[in-house]
Amino acid sequence: MRFQSYEHGGNIYDYNRKLIDFSSNINPLGPPSWIEEIITRVDLSVYPDIRYRKLRSSIAGYLGCSPESVIVGNGITELIFLFVRAFKVKRPLIPSPTFCEYERAVILHGGKPKFLKIREEENFKLNVYEVIEKIPLVDALFLCNPNNPTGGIINKRELSLIVDAAKSLDIPVFVDEAFIEFVMDEKNYTAIDLIEKYDKLFVVRAITKFFALPGLRLGYGIAQATTINRLESYKEPWSVNSIAVEVGSRIFEDKKYIEESKIKVNELRENFMKALSHVNFLKVFPSSTNFILVKLLKDTSSEIKNRLLDRGFLIRDASNFRYLNKKFIRLAVRGEKENVLIVGAIRDILGGG
Amino acid sequence: MRFQSYEHGGNIYDYNRKLIDFSSNINPLGPPSWIEEIITRVDLSVYPDIRYRKLRSSIAGYLGCSPESVIVGNGITELIFLFVRAFKVKRPLIPSPTFCEYERAVILHGGKPKFLKIREEENFKLNVYEVIEKIPLVDALFLCNPNNPTGGIINKRELSLIVDAAKSLDIPVFVDEAFIEFVMDEKNYTAIDLIEKYDKLFVVRAITKFFALPGLRLGYGIAQATTINRLESYKEPWSVNSIAVEVGSRIFEDKKYIEESKIKVNELRENFMKALSHVNFLKVFPSSTNFILVKLLKDTSSEIKNRLLDRGFLIRDASNFRYLNKKFIRLAVRGEKENVLIVGAIRDILGGG
Repeated sequence: MRFQSYEHGGNIYDYNRKLIDFSSNINPLGPPSWIEEIITRVDLSVYPDIRYRKLRSSIAGYLGCSPESVIVGNGITELIFLFVRAFKVKRPLIPSPTFCEYERAVILHGGKPKFLKIREEENFKLNVYEVIEKIPLVDALFLCNPNNPTGGIINKRELSLIVDAAKSLDIPVFVDEAFIEFVMDEKNYTAIDLIEKYDKLFVVRAITKFFALPGLRLGYGIAQATTINRLESYKEPWSVNSIAVEVGSRIFEDKKYIEESKIKVNELRENFMKALSHVNFLKVFPSSTNFILVKLLKDTSSEIKNRLLDRGFLIRDASNFRYLNKKFIRLAVRGEKENVLIVGAIRDILGGG
Repeated sequence: MRFQSYEHGGNIYDYNRKLIDFSSNINPLGPPSWIEEIITRVDLSVYPDIRYRKLRSSIAGYLGCSPESVIVGNGITELIFLFVRAFKVKRPLIPSPTFCEYERAVILHGGKPKFLKIREEENFKLNVYEVIEKIPLVDALFLCNPNNPTGGIINKRELSLIVDAAKSLDIPVFVDEAFIEFVMDEKNYTAIDLIEKYDKLFVVRAITKFFALPGLRLGYGIAQATTINRLESYKEPWSVNSIAVEVGSRIFEDKKYIEESKIKVNELRENFMKALSHVNFLKVFPSSTNFILVKLLKDTSSEIKNRLLDRGFLIRDASNFRYLNKKFIRLAVRGEKENVLIVGAIRDILGGG
């Protein structure tokens, strides 16, 4: 059954006990504390605004674009499916390993993606020139930046080269920036500034990861107004609920939370990576965001996952990502204490100091 | 732009002032009062269960079926689009006037619906024999029961005839029961009991209308497990948010609210219909649910809508429903006082006593 072959992190519901969840990549600081107060004041007995005017204005203010350049969705996932439908994407390029829903959306709409291997030998950094070389062979391009599950990132100059190549062939480009707000110097990596130069560039983000609100379901996308109108014409109405609207209309003003999260998560990741890199039989790949791809030089991902489960930790077995294998796991960056605990547990399990 | 041609009720956001909203068909009793307390306790920092096990169990308990027969969605709308995708619906029969999203979903997926006119001369009651006659010409069937915007309803015996005809030709059937819980003797009208006899019958409902929670976005559908699996394989993940999960896991146990709503709304509707039918220049069509289709024998729907807006009432101009025209408006049943007020206003506007 297709439903089961695309597995995600965060499936704490599969287990009947309390686990420390390193499998979903959520801001370890948790959501801003003022949210609880707001949600009780939302009137759920009226429909959300079908055009989401207030919410789109707020997002536009955050990103410095116009509200006509913003579309909202039920997480990024809805926007992936919408992009595939609106641009009739049948044979896109999907550099992989990456988030599985791009592939799933294309296949469910009768297409067949072309994959480009992101190489371990290149430390899982996307090879921009290989991407550009393949663009003439495809009808769209998906980029996840920073990339899930590898943590690799390309900068704005590299993105710009890709966008230029795509533009010259009129190939739509989807850039998933679900994790970009965790990156310290985000401005040097985002594709948002490139939107003005290409009308088929669609950049998406969400409050899911950075604001630690996966339960609320709010994603958003930016493009030129013509592309937003095209996407809107395919959209299922009211897919964003009224509580997400209220929270989303205020959350981007919380500059203190945004700044603190960036600084704190970067510090946590650096310490976590350093500790992991000192464990024998582990290889840690570079990451500039809130999760880390790790290669096991001994044992398999499912063995480690199960042995960590015995100790109360849930991790992401990364073996089902395309081009990865039974040697890979992904770890979310959590709080200092929890990160130290899981490093100790992994060291114990793998042995050898 | 396609986006604007499918207009819905409830667009209070188009107006910069407080209006009494007769355009969206929401339970006038408002949501159960205990909801506010629950929503603050929901942990939004974890993903909802991707399989929605607890929620599906609760719905199954309410309907007396197994959890494997239940799928949940972001309102009924998501389930309409999912049905179209999963069954590759290209040329369905859509008896009309009816809810516009069936048509929109089919067209957006490259199909072209076939329409069957529900006749004013038959008091907008669906002609079952005409439906059965058309089934060999189509690849799916959409039924809205009770039908929006007409208020017409067909009973279980009639539904059963249609389902038998569809089954003999292996034609999938979609039955939208968004408003059925407002019907007094609901058991005699629901298609849910027919599911066991046909594997391609898909019946959908929502908490939107009856539980007055359009802002929460929770719909659900019932079918045999094979069809549910098929639909799941096409589904976008996590489309139902965590607050909808918590509320939806408890709301069907509130038997008192359910019973009171049924009785109260029926009483309100009967009084409202009686009062409207005494107004000159109005024709009121039969309804067994929480809205009423009204024909204007004088003036047009947009004139009446604008003149009611001047007095602080928002109604649904029903002229853009297929087969209706500038003579039709739809009124939601609201509280006694508000219903009396709008009847007075309409009488004033139309004149003649």
